[in-house]
Amino acid sequence: MKHTLQNDLLIRAARREKTERAPVWFMRQAGRYLPEYRALRAKHDFLTMVKNPELASEVTIQPVDLIGVDAAIIFSDILIVPEAMGMKLLVEEGKGGPRFPDPIRLYTQIRDLKDIDPSRDLKYVADAIILTQQKLKGRVPLIGFSGAPWTLFCYMVEGSGSKDFRHAKEMIFTRSDEAHKLLQKIAGAVADYLVMQIEAGADVVQIFDTWAGILTPEDFQDFSLQYIGDIVRDVKKRTNNRAPVIVFCKGANHSLTEIAATSCDVVGLDWTIDIADAKALIGNEVALQGNLDPSLLFASEQVITDRVNEIAGRMGDCTGHIFNLGHGITPDVQPDRARAFVEAGKKAYLR
Amino acid sequence: MKHTLQNDLLIRAARREKTERAPVWFMRQAGRYLPEYRALRAKHDFLTMVKNPELASEVTIQPVDLIGVDAAIIFSDILIVPEAMGMKLLVEEGKGGPRFPDPIRLYTQIRDLKDIDPSRDLKYVADAIILTQQKLKGRVPLIGFSGAPWTLFCYMVEGSGSKDFRHAKEMIFTRSDEAHKLLQKIAGAVADYLVMQIEAGADVVQIFDTWAGILTPEDFQDFSLQYIGDIVRDVKKRTNNRAPVIVFCKGANHSLTEIAATSCDVVGLDWTIDIADAKALIGNEVALQGNLDPSLLFASEQVITDRVNEIAGRMGDCTGHIFNLGHGITPDVQPDRARAFVEAGKKAYLR
Repeated sequence: MKHTLQNDLLIRAARREKTERAPVWFMRQAGRYLPEYRALRAKHDFLTMVKNPELASEVTIQPVDLIGVDAAIIFSDILIVPEAMGMKLLVEEGKGGPRFPDPIRLYTQIRDLKDIDPSRDLKYVADAIILTQQKLKGRVPLIGFSGAPWTLFCYMVEGSGSKDFRHAKEMIFTRSDEAHKLLQKIAGAVADYLVMQIEAGADVVQIFDTWAGILTPEDFQDFSLQYIGDIVRDVKKRTNNRAPVIVFCKGANHSLTEIAATSCDVVGLDWTIDIADAKALIGNEVALQGNLDPSLLFASEQVITDRVNEIAGRMGDCTGHIFNLGHGITPDVQPDRARAFVEAGKKAYLR
Repeated sequence: MKHTLQNDLLIRAARREKTERAPVWFMRQAGRYLPEYRALRAKHDFLTMVKNPELASEVTIQPVDLIGVDAAIIFSDILIVPEAMGMKLLVEEGKGGPRFPDPIRLYTQIRDLKDIDPSRDLKYVADAIILTQQKLKGRVPLIGFSGAPWTLFCYMVEGSGSKDFRHAKEMIFTRSDEAHKLLQKIAGAVADYLVMQIEAGADVVQIFDTWAGILTPEDFQDFSLQYIGDIVRDVKKRTNNRAPVIVFCKGANHSLTEIAATSCDVVGLDWTIDIADAKALIGNEVALQGNLDPSLLFASEQVITDRVNEIAGRMGDCTGHIFNLGHGITPDVQPDRARAFVEAGKKAYLR
């Protein structure tokens, strides 16, 4: 049974209801910048932590206790979806991030990808969400998430991170039919996965399109956003619009109007846009999440506070604003700076 | 003595004069994707080639002969300016790009940077320009260039390329006075360097701000664009507006109006904007350069041609358009694809 939320700021802000202040959380808040995370991580490898509900729930809650964020986000990784679809996933220490040793290059590989049943293939995520909710006891909302189809496609076709995702680009330019087949398969899996997370108890879900910014506006529409739109509408319909949906397409400020039109509740912003401009453009349709430059967490607490206040000043009032960084927190940030950001964000509209 | 230009399309396009078609060139056109370049490079290390006018002029002209571009750009590297200012520059084979082993972290290091005299400290560039012009005999214009102060600052403070340029960001956020002192020094050197290149015979100059996109719009204005504006106005004044100036700030589409207002003649565009939108915004003040996704050169000739024609279609007519990629060519592109791009660009407005 789900507990009643004691702090429901995130939910209300996502629905653009009146709030007394903006909620604050940040991407990758359960992670390496926290010594308490590193202590646990020293004993278990990354995928073990992702797949063990006890460990995953523990690190999910760490930033709630230690940093004071207004929401938890389930500790996980976007690449477990392709893994569930049948791709071998390797996370080797010190080898520069997770990778797929057998990237998708042939049509037969696309055809052979499994249709996943998330409640079976990704049951550990459901279990982690259920356990986290039991531990949170309604203190703050819990966010579920997935990578967007285009971002997952990039990793699946390239095999790893890349500067230009040459093979992914090659596929969309030269074999666009196959690319669309693959994107469609991924989109189906992502929708099922998000529905499963909401059914397990996620109060909000976020779709991350980390690699949106490497596409032209038109290619972004064709190869990314149309699938995100399908997912948002499908998830909302199947879950009775129970959980607000956040869409964050990094580097795609050229298409904010179109992103807002996917039926999502919140649009995530990176730091390369004045939030006042975003508000003028789409602030009547959606809430806005962001948009502090993550590198500011290397600055002094005073500078962090000043910049947070500047964002609040541009936004004007806190209705429909969720404070966040414009990208994930960098692992070598000091926890006290993350705390300074959260503190400043909580006070920014109360001055 | 300079030869009269037989092909002055680039000059006329840059000044938004009537042209029969758009000129085509591309960033890093003298470089590793050409077997003829690699053959020479196998015999000489990178900095030797940059500093030897005979070798530099040879690779500068290769793409004119081999690919058919409408302009040459002097073979060089943006990091020779910091080197001339006194920083030790290392280019080690297979070690991931050039780097400064003693990056700037202290005020004393900023203070100790030399005021350069480009005609002495970077004489090899002037000599390479003079020699290239003698060899080109006016076939096409020759472009000179420099990194923008912010981009040079990033490398000088970080020491090398970086994902987030943490130290550069730290300096602008926590010691902005020092950052401005350093940027001012760099800007002075860049202006002198560009004037020297124009006096040596460069027909056009381009300022590259590769790292513009990691800044918020406001920080971009403060720490990058104001210095670019100073440079453009200074260079134009001192050279009697003899050479058109191209400004390319990658990832700064949020500030196109402000970039166009620097008094530059041409604004370079990456591929994350519809060129029709850029034209509507700033097309009355400046010419536009770009904006093909460089990854398209991994596609078929047909796809390349279709995409080039699409850009021409969006632009409408060729006045004030210089065809280019939205970023430097990737080293593993096949030369025939680069040729296909140039051919398509030349024909795009003649259909």
